[in-house]
This record gives sequence, C-alpha cells and structure tokens, in this order.
Amino acid sequence: MRKISVVGIGAGDPDHLTLQAAKTIGRTDVFFLLDKGETKAGLINVRERIIRAYSKPRKRIIEGRDPDRDRNPADYTGTVADWRHRRSLVLEELITENLKDGEIGAILVWGDPALYDSTIAILEEILDRGAVEFEFEVIPGISSVSALAAKHRIGLNRVGQPFQITTGRRLAEGWPDGVDDVVVMLDAQQAFTKHPEAEIYWGAYVSTEDELLASGPVAEVADEIVKTRTEARERHGWIMDTYLLRRP
Amino acid sequence: MRKISVVGIGAGDPDHLTLQAAKTIGRTDVFFLLDKGETKAGLINVRERIIRAYSKPRKRIIEGRDPDRDRNPADYTGTVADWRHRRSLVLEELITENLKDGEIGAILVWGDPALYDSTIAILEEILDRGAVEFEFEVIPGISSVSALAAKHRIGLNRVGQPFQITTGRRLAEGWPDGVDDVVVMLDAQQAFTKHPEAEIYWGAYVSTEDELLASGPVAEVADEIVKTRTEARERHGWIMDTYLLRRP
Repeated sequence: MRKISVVGIGAGDPDHLTLQAAKTIGRTDVFFLLDKGETKAGLINVRERIIRAYSKPRKRIIEGRDPDRDRNPADYTGTVADWRHRRSLVLEELITENLKDGEIGAILVWGDPALYDSTIAILEEILDRGAVEFEFEVIPGISSVSALAAKHRIGLNRVGQPFQITTGRRLAEGWPDGVDDVVVMLDAQQAFTKHPEAEIYWGAYVSTEDELLASGPVAEVADEIVKTRTEARERHGWIMDTYLLRRP
Repeated sequence: MRKISVVGIGAGDPDHLTLQAAKTIGRTDVFFLLDKGETKAGLINVRERIIRAYSKPRKRIIEGRDPDRDRNPADYTGTVADWRHRRSLVLEELITENLKDGEIGAILVWGDPALYDSTIAILEEILDRGAVEFEFEVIPGISSVSALAAKHRIGLNRVGQPFQITTGRRLAEGWPDGVDDVVVMLDAQQAFTKHPEAEIYWGAYVSTEDELLASGPVAEVADEIVKTRTEARERHGWIMDTYLLRRP
C-alpha cells in the first residue's frame, strides 16, 4: 500500500518544524512539490532547507506545476472547487507515476494543514475517484495564526470568550456576529481599515527573515500598515499577512 | 536582565515539540512548574520526559503550588480573574527568589500559549505590578485543536468560510451566530448533545497514549461519546477533550 503524509511545516521559521514532522520527512521516499509559476522565493528556500536537513539520502523530489487560479473570481467557491479539481488531477498523475507500493510520499504544507489549506480535500477527491489507492495521515503544524499571536505575545481569545477565524472577503461584508475577536487570513482587500474602533495585531511573513509586525488602534495604525503592506508586496512580489482584530 | 520564555509544548505527544521549543528548553536555566494538587499523571510524565530530553544538565526545576480554583463558579470571569491574580502572586515569588539577573526561565504550556491559556496574562500582571522586571517571549505550540483536526484528517474551515473557537459554556447558550463550524474547548457540560443535526469530530487526550476519537452525526454518536467520556474521566481522574461541530 502507498502511504502519503500531509506534513505541516510551520509558518516560515525552519525551527517551527516539530520533531514529528522531522521524523516523517526522514522516512519519506518521495516528496511531491506543487509550486505556482510565480516564486515565493523566501518560502521555497526554507522548504528546500528543511528537506535537505531532515530527509534521507535516497529520497526523490517530484515537482509538478500548480494549475493557475483566478485570485479575484466572481464565483469564489466554484472557482476554488474547479482549481482544487485541476490540482487533484495533477497530483493524482504524480502519485500514480512516482510512488510505488510500500513507499511513503509526503506533501509539505505551510502552517497547519487544517487551516485554509486544500491538500486534505484534494487527497480525498483523488481517493473518491478510485483510480489510485493510498493511505494518508496528517501531521499538524504551527499555523501563521499561532506564530502571529506568539510574536505579539497575545492570546487569541479573552477569558471565556469565543473568537472567529475568517477571511478578508468575509470581513469586508461586515464585522461578524457574536464575537469581539476576529482573526483574519487571506485579506487582499485590507478590510481592517473599515474598523477604526478595533485594535489590530498585524503581521506579514511572520517568523521569516522578512517579518513585519504592527499593532495599535486601527484608527492610528491603518495607514501605516497599508503603506508597509503595499511596499512589501511590491518588493517581494507576494505577501502573506494575518491579523487579529480586537474590539473593546 | 531576567528573561522568561513561555513555551508551547504541544497537545501531549512529545514529538509535537518544535525545534524552536527544544532549543529554548536547552537554553533554560530555571523551569517554573505550577501544578494542581490533583495529578494529570500522563501529561506530567510527558513534560518531565521533555525536560529530561532537551534541557541542559545544570538547570533548576522550581515547583510551585497552583492556587485552587472553583471550576463551576457563579461569576466565571471574576473567578478566573481572581485565580489568575493569586497565580501571579505565586509565580512572582518563585521568579523573584529563583531567577537571577542574566538567567533564562521557562514556563512550559500545553498546546499553544495563545489558546485558552492564562500564562501570558499572568506575566503581564506581574510586570504591571512593577516589583520584578523581566523580558518575556512566546514560543508557539501545536494546539489540541490542530492535533484533533490532524487525527480526524479534516480542515477546521470549509472553503472561504469562517469558523468559531469557543467554550462549552458558550455553546450551551445556543449555536453561535454566523458560523456553521464551531470548535469547542473546555466543555464540562457536553453541550454538543443539544445539536443532533450537526456532525461531530471529537477527541480526548488527543495525541497521547490514552487518545480517544469518535466522529459522526451527533444524533448517532452522542450517547457513545457521553459514555466514553464519563468512563475515561473516572479512570484517569481528569479529562481534556475538544471537538469540532459542523452543521450541514
């Protein structure tokens, strides 16, 4: 039987790797890497460094081309489903052609595979088609949310209170009901600017060498974050930022 | 200057430890352990094992007595604030008496220090009093939520959707507004039983040797989970469980 490990490798600091992840990487015969045409150079270097440091000498690295994806589609859910489907076809072919019976494959995922990542759903889709069989396991990782909170030295919740994790797209529709603490991921539209009454704890490229942090009342720091974010995005060609909004 | 590291050590599997946490433990001069009178024997063994494996030979281990706490208070927030305050006094004394200038202290925290943990708030309270000075940093850890999702091989969110992390106490007041996916921690009242229409992904002692997992429609599995939970709690003398409820 083939086996595939979906390995959370943390938010960017190579030392976010858990011992469990390092051991799993050490057992892996085949690494499957799907990258976009554009390069997130810093992150890719970290991933290569992790593979080099913890993998066995005779592993194989198989690189596939991640399908293109419309980042601002009219039909968000439909577009994501279609992208996942195309991604599952690419990955299925890579697995079928490269992972032999009895071998262990691994897919390395930034952050935690449980949080706004599609790898698990893609493997389920491949298994549902029934053309290739494998077992799979998930190794949890340090999410960008945990990394952000650690750098700001804050809790995500207040005593006995709930909090929500959501997307910039959702926050742009309004502050969510029933919570005063909101963690936002994937915010291309800087929806925090609409909530001047909140405190923000913001970070980009958190735990990497390029880390940027800012915090304070949105009314006071929003302009600076927007400026920093725009400049950083131009400089690096991409940005990955996360923030907590806390309403008094 | 004294320095204190708040180190997330994961949900119970010693291999959840990150390289960053292991390195921090290796630099630590003084470990501060606050335990309850009751024993969470399994977890304490894991923590001892971690300290033994990664700490330097001449570290010191200082044990304090965690103040008692009413687990079912009428005034929840007030009672927690009072408990934190008493805890901060105990810890302040331990730090003042045992951590010398230039030394590094560490407090090891189960899961992730950002999630329903009071250590950061307690350190802030000690600093606010101004009687002792130190710097502190936070090392993120694998939370019980990440560990649960990994074991069930699920994502916490659905495509582009938000989710909420909350307590059993809150869920008992009703399903939260605006989300169909709810992660529940600290549920002594088994509030999931009130939501037969949801799917549950439940786990106790997740990632330890005593791990228990169950999933399915609440209508079908709730009785079994309640039974399992009650038996396990009697057997171990304590229980720590977490679950995701997913509404169709």
